[in-house]
Amino acid sequence: MQLQLALDLVNIPEAKELVKEVEEHVDIVEIGTPIINKEGHKAVKEIKDAFPNMTVLADVKVMDAGAYEVMNASQAGADIVTILGATDDITIKGAVEEAKKHGTEILVDMINVPNLEQRAKEIDELGVDYICVHTGYDGQAAGQNPFEQLKVIKNVVKNAKTAIAGGIILDTLPQVVDAEPDLVIVGGGITGQEDKKAAAAEMKKLIKEKVLA
Amino acid sequence: MQLQLALDLVNIPEAKELVKEVEEHVDIVEIGTPIINKEGHKAVKEIKDAFPNMTVLADVKVMDAGAYEVMNASQAGADIVTILGATDDITIKGAVEEAKKHGTEILVDMINVPNLEQRAKEIDELGVDYICVHTGYDGQAAGQNPFEQLKVIKNVVKNAKTAIAGGIILDTLPQVVDAEPDLVIVGGGITGQEDKKAAAAEMKKLIKEKVLA
Repeated sequence: MQLQLALDLVNIPEAKELVKEVEEHVDIVEIGTPIINKEGHKAVKEIKDAFPNMTVLADVKVMDAGAYEVMNASQAGADIVTILGATDDITIKGAVEEAKKHGTEILVDMINVPNLEQRAKEIDELGVDYICVHTGYDGQAAGQNPFEQLKVIKNVVKNAKTAIAGGIILDTLPQVVDAEPDLVIVGGGITGQEDKKAAAAEMKKLIKEKVLA
Repeated sequence: MQLQLALDLVNIPEAKELVKEVEEHVDIVEIGTPIINKEGHKAVKEIKDAFPNMTVLADVKVMDAGAYEVMNASQAGADIVTILGATDDITIKGAVEEAKKHGTEILVDMINVPNLEQRAKEIDELGVDYICVHTGYDGQAAGQNPFEQLKVIKNVVKNAKTAIAGGIILDTLPQVVDAEPDLVIVGGGITGQEDKKAAAAEMKKLIKEKVLA
């Protein structure tokens, strides 16, 4: 089980500071969609250049032009690129094929996918690396969370790794960890804390204890 | 009926050259998703700065954080921001509210929305400015087009303006124009032609003839 730090509301220098602070406790750092929209793939490149041993995920949330977008993100230094589960199979297949050429991985973000169980089954046949349940900022503000959704995909996904994102904090991490996803994605649960390093360390410890249990 | 030039596969200097060439014949210039992912909102800002009287659309394809993304795009100079029809109503409502604060408009991109008629009806109640049927690059490569979809939304959309995008060229423009969308979005139909200015002029002429007919 891995821990991913999601960066969304910071600029590139702030992102570097944050990664430096917590890098020993996280496995993957995510350059969030709002950062990519503001700064472009320069943000991905600068973080990868500064932390070459860190796995970097580019949260491009691709809806179209799967191969082309994965090529651009991979060339910028991304190790993992996100595709929307709401897109069609052609886009996902194009993304998977292109990722193989670059040695990068595909994470499918199931945000706002209506028939989660059915769609997760379909996408699991397309050779993607991760399938991720995700309650976005707007869903969280409306009181939603992704915990039940994780159980749904854990039941049907047989090939891909499973991931979860959406408002996870230290208090809710134990119930997430109990459901045994392969990847836990945390944003404000680390970046919104006074002592970010301690928060990341505590989360990593909880995850390790579960894996060893 | 307006004509929008979609720019996807160019860098910022090439985009400027292109807009300069065809500006007298197009009403809106679109900074496409691949450009925003590569360059960030700098692309939107540079085109708006270079062509302050041109209406600029930022094709951010927002899936989450509707208000925040619309704020960022609007501050970069976008006059119109795109939101995915596949997202939830909360995100669309947040986008619409934020757009009002900036005097910008919302275009909802219906790409890969499964229940087009039903979803178009729902979105039409949310105060968006445009609802756009769209066959993406990957869908076009698989032989799809958006012509029938335009008829579907024309029947149910009562408040928003209607738009169409996806592989429209001079040969197919007459059938598009006959269905009377408020906005026709053309990419390769202009940018892929030897004489781009002539292609844009011919398209604008066809549109004007229809409006005056």
